[in-house]
Amino acid sequence: MLPLPAVGWSPDTRALRILDQRLLPAQEVVRDLTALADTIDAIRTLAVRGAPAIGVAAAIGLAVALETESGGNGAHARALLPEFSARLIAARPTAVNLAWAVQRLLRLAAETPDDQLVESLRVEAEVIRQEDLAMCAAIGRHGLTLIPDGARVLTHCNAGALATAGMGTALAPLYAAHAAGRLVTVYADETRPLRQGARLTAWELSRAGINVTVLPDGAAASLIAQRQVDLVIVGADRITANGDVANKVGTYGVALAAKAHGVPFYVAAPWSTIDAATPTGRDIVIEYRDAEELGELPPGVPAWNPAFDVTPRSFVTAYLTDRGMVSPPFALLSPTV
Amino acid sequence: MLPLPAVGWSPDTRALRILDQRLLPAQEVVRDLTALADTIDAIRTLAVRGAPAIGVAAAIGLAVALETESGGNGAHARALLPEFSARLIAARPTAVNLAWAVQRLLRLAAETPDDQLVESLRVEAEVIRQEDLAMCAAIGRHGLTLIPDGARVLTHCNAGALATAGMGTALAPLYAAHAAGRLVTVYADETRPLRQGARLTAWELSRAGINVTVLPDGAAASLIAQRQVDLVIVGADRITANGDVANKVGTYGVALAAKAHGVPFYVAAPWSTIDAATPTGRDIVIEYRDAEELGELPPGVPAWNPAFDVTPRSFVTAYLTDRGMVSPPFALLSPTV
Repeated sequence: MLPLPAVGWSPDTRALRILDQRLLPAQEVVRDLTALADTIDAIRTLAVRGAPAIGVAAAIGLAVALETESGGNGAHARALLPEFSARLIAARPTAVNLAWAVQRLLRLAAETPDDQLVESLRVEAEVIRQEDLAMCAAIGRHGLTLIPDGARVLTHCNAGALATAGMGTALAPLYAAHAAGRLVTVYADETRPLRQGARLTAWELSRAGINVTVLPDGAAASLIAQRQVDLVIVGADRITANGDVANKVGTYGVALAAKAHGVPFYVAAPWSTIDAATPTGRDIVIEYRDAEELGELPPGVPAWNPAFDVTPRSFVTAYLTDRGMVSPPFALLSPTV
Repeated sequence: MLPLPAVGWSPDTRALRILDQRLLPAQEVVRDLTALADTIDAIRTLAVRGAPAIGVAAAIGLAVALETESGGNGAHARALLPEFSARLIAARPTAVNLAWAVQRLLRLAAETPDDQLVESLRVEAEVIRQEDLAMCAAIGRHGLTLIPDGARVLTHCNAGALATAGMGTALAPLYAAHAAGRLVTVYADETRPLRQGARLTAWELSRAGINVTVLPDGAAASLIAQRQVDLVIVGADRITANGDVANKVGTYGVALAAKAHGVPFYVAAPWSTIDAATPTGRDIVIEYRDAEELGELPPGVPAWNPAFDVTPRSFVTAYLTDRGMVSPPFALLSPTV
């Protein structure tokens, strides 16, 4: 069993359907959104999260909102497009996939006559969704050889189905191995401060019938030292030309422990995550987030709360993408592998 | 300014005075306890915590309760002693210092006549408290050379004033350096699951006027990699004969990062923490704690929640104790350094 889709169409295809991740793991609530303001709100408040899922939600949400608001009138829809696009992109300005999906619809609109506009944007949104499903499945397929029967796998944060329209990125090989009848045991780091591992990874894996155990981030090194982990697999927010990996803070600590104990450390991500224009991890600007995310602190005490850390190339056993295993350095005009 | 004492006497010396750590950092509430049941409750519910502080609380609490209950009558107090002692030790059966302090009062009682019993136990409890103050001060004094002006220090969990009757163990050198006029900047790991770093270390250091910043445990490796840490100093729950260190889970991950980036990693603890009867860290039985401590998890998902991890000797730059710097191997009949 695969988890509920994080993002897709309602059954009548007239609405964007999302699983509201703000309520997980306590409640599984599905919402059908048609108004642009509702889609924006869902993205802004992290009801939908994860770069691929945000891109798909933006595409479907924009197509649906234009159709609803214009009543299917192409000229009216075209008139709404600039304002709707700008508002949507502003929902999370740093989400690259959000702007990418909206711009893809804008490019298509520019070359589509009014009478086909609404339907063309709907089709393009579905193509974006299908590409995401295919990307996830390809990572799963290419990663299947990494997950032997009985494998005990440690992961950090959530690069799973909940972050995509499909079966996830880092978790895709685990779903594929499970579907192939292999026994898989997953250890999910809690992933402070927002607990994506405890709330999301644990939820989606357990719902799919995969054994999953949560541990505090600080316990990962100890678990590895006790030889209870056969391999580590994590996602990536960005992979630089030399192979350095920016991912959720805490990833580098896991990499240090894996290397110290000879445990393979795999990074699984869409090929589009490779940013060949950025030479190394030192060139990545790390986002710092609010102290409030850490919960109660003594009055006046600040927090150091980076969203990401950088794991150097030398810690990565292999890079798994929808194009298969790839190796740095990544050139700007990389040939397809 | 030093923080409020975590444990001591009320001003009239008729009660055990504790700072209720259950309410930190939101509220600073001091409680004066005389009934044995109240002292037991304070220890059991972690209103008082930290091995040295528990020992002092038990000694004072027992002396006070016997005096109160017996009305100062020595024969009556002696009659109460076996039951009171047993109940107190059962408050936290694994707390070595608790049993140690109670047994010290029992030994004294056995050689003291009735008419001096109540006062003798009070004096012995005060001696135990004074020894704790002296132990903390000695660690601070011996550790002063480790903390240069401007030092940026990372610590994990709380081995501070709140864990002792005095100025703490791992934090003692920081208080000593601050008192000597040196600028000290401390980074305190949040320390999941119970957040002793965010709640306690951050509170006591900021209250003493020392700059402190809290970070998620997973961010420590990144902070070290960014060269923002000059040295690490942590406490210890137990140090084995070969120098392996059991301490709050997460310590080993910090040690891995410190070693990878050439940052000194100091362990500061009372000499009594050295357990020369245990050969190595592999011989330590790790306590596993309830999943509930990790907060909300999806239904049916278990947690792997060890209280401690083991940092091998090779990661420790130096061992700082109240007897000065010491080096393994530690023999059962170690001479005083």
